[in-house]
Amino acid sequence: MISLVPLAGLPAIRPGDDLGVLLLTAAESSRTALAEGDVLVVCQKVVSKAEGRIVDLRGVEPSSFARRIASLAEDKDPRIVEVVLRETKRIVKMERGHLIVETGAGWICANAGVDASNSGDADTVIVLPVDPDASARRIASLLHERTGHRIAVIVTDTFGRPWRQGLVDFALGVAGMDALLDLRGSTDLDGRELHHTVIAQADALAAAAGLLMRKNAGIPAVLIRGYEFTPAEGTGRDLVRPPELDMFR
Amino acid sequence: MISLVPLAGLPAIRPGDDLGVLLLTAAESSRTALAEGDVLVVCQKVVSKAEGRIVDLRGVEPSSFARRIASLAEDKDPRIVEVVLRETKRIVKMERGHLIVETGAGWICANAGVDASNSGDADTVIVLPVDPDASARRIASLLHERTGHRIAVIVTDTFGRPWRQGLVDFALGVAGMDALLDLRGSTDLDGRELHHTVIAQADALAAAAGLLMRKNAGIPAVLIRGYEFTPAEGTGRDLVRPPELDMFR
Repeated sequence: MISLVPLAGLPAIRPGDDLGVLLLTAAESSRTALAEGDVLVVCQKVVSKAEGRIVDLRGVEPSSFARRIASLAEDKDPRIVEVVLRETKRIVKMERGHLIVETGAGWICANAGVDASNSGDADTVIVLPVDPDASARRIASLLHERTGHRIAVIVTDTFGRPWRQGLVDFALGVAGMDALLDLRGSTDLDGRELHHTVIAQADALAAAAGLLMRKNAGIPAVLIRGYEFTPAEGTGRDLVRPPELDMFR
Repeated sequence: MISLVPLAGLPAIRPGDDLGVLLLTAAESSRTALAEGDVLVVCQKVVSKAEGRIVDLRGVEPSSFARRIASLAEDKDPRIVEVVLRETKRIVKMERGHLIVETGAGWICANAGVDASNSGDADTVIVLPVDPDASARRIASLLHERTGHRIAVIVTDTFGRPWRQGLVDFALGVAGMDALLDLRGSTDLDGRELHHTVIAQADALAAAAGLLMRKNAGIPAVLIRGYEFTPAEGTGRDLVRPPELDMFR
């Protein structure tokens, strides 16, 4: 059995906060104490806030390209488009003012993950952490130091998908476990070798935790217990499909 | 709290089996009796087997196009490519013998979901159910009839994704709940309206259940308890992005 426990009761996060400490306090005040082998899933928004990844739009001067893009979509703030472009390494697709981009860190998503909701202020937006693996590792280290337990940490964000309607949570940063579970070489129930079976376990854990982290619910973290995995250093970068294997770049 | 309970102990499924009855028996012999508001996630493979969606490759004559495609990839059986093409309405992308297609039912996935693993026989493959919503509804009806509880049912399959490495489970058929959770019009924690927030809750539930349904584990179904949702008729077709909103068709 796997259980998903929401961690509520975090204060409003401010730049410079030690998120690991706040998460530990929230876990201690819930009925579920952290234990060896737990997976702690944390949404990107609180990570970014703690790391000061907040952009004040009042100081952003949109370029002419940003203004042009904004004019093509309904209700798009050219200053937000400018922030998106500053986070962008490559534009994968643009249509009618909608931008699907590759970020500096290699994530492919809409609007470079720049997010105006729950930023705490109508004139600010939140951008993705610079290095979500490092963010996850910092939290995992703090938890290990304070509890003695090795707890895997996944930093997630909510993305749309090609072909499918609706948003789902994905893993950006991973620490303490492999993002992928490689079953190649093992056999199916008929004894046939599984040739292509690499499971995106960190994405599946992110999606599961997302069931409790709705944007209007005030749940920034979820504790997952009972998922069997092999401890490992881990990195969310393993989830980025290499260009030569990606038919939809 | 949400809990995910694996349902083991199903016999090998044969065409004509009443899967609802077998799932109910498996649930009864587990420690968790089915209850109102549960979500039962069932993998496509056992659904397809019960519905006789098994193709004997010994009776398949590959077309010249199927043979050509097979010759471009390593280790590809032209008879399997022929089965893929028979399930295909439109080829979305083909490169080096790899096929991403739109199936007759509208799913976009590799190889039309045709699967050789766990088929029970080296000369057979399993194809997707003709109407996975109807498959889900049949199971939900049987469970309602026998237990008196309304239980949502999701039929899932395991797909790769553009841009990201590794496989994750997705919802194909849905009964008893909406596949999408529409939060548009509600407000975030700052009181700002959420404009774009439609959650693919059936896909997230599928991904969560997938954590327990690894191909080599013999777990064809997972019971999810504690996920709050509004009962509804539901359909997995809501998860198919309409062409006019899909930049990656």
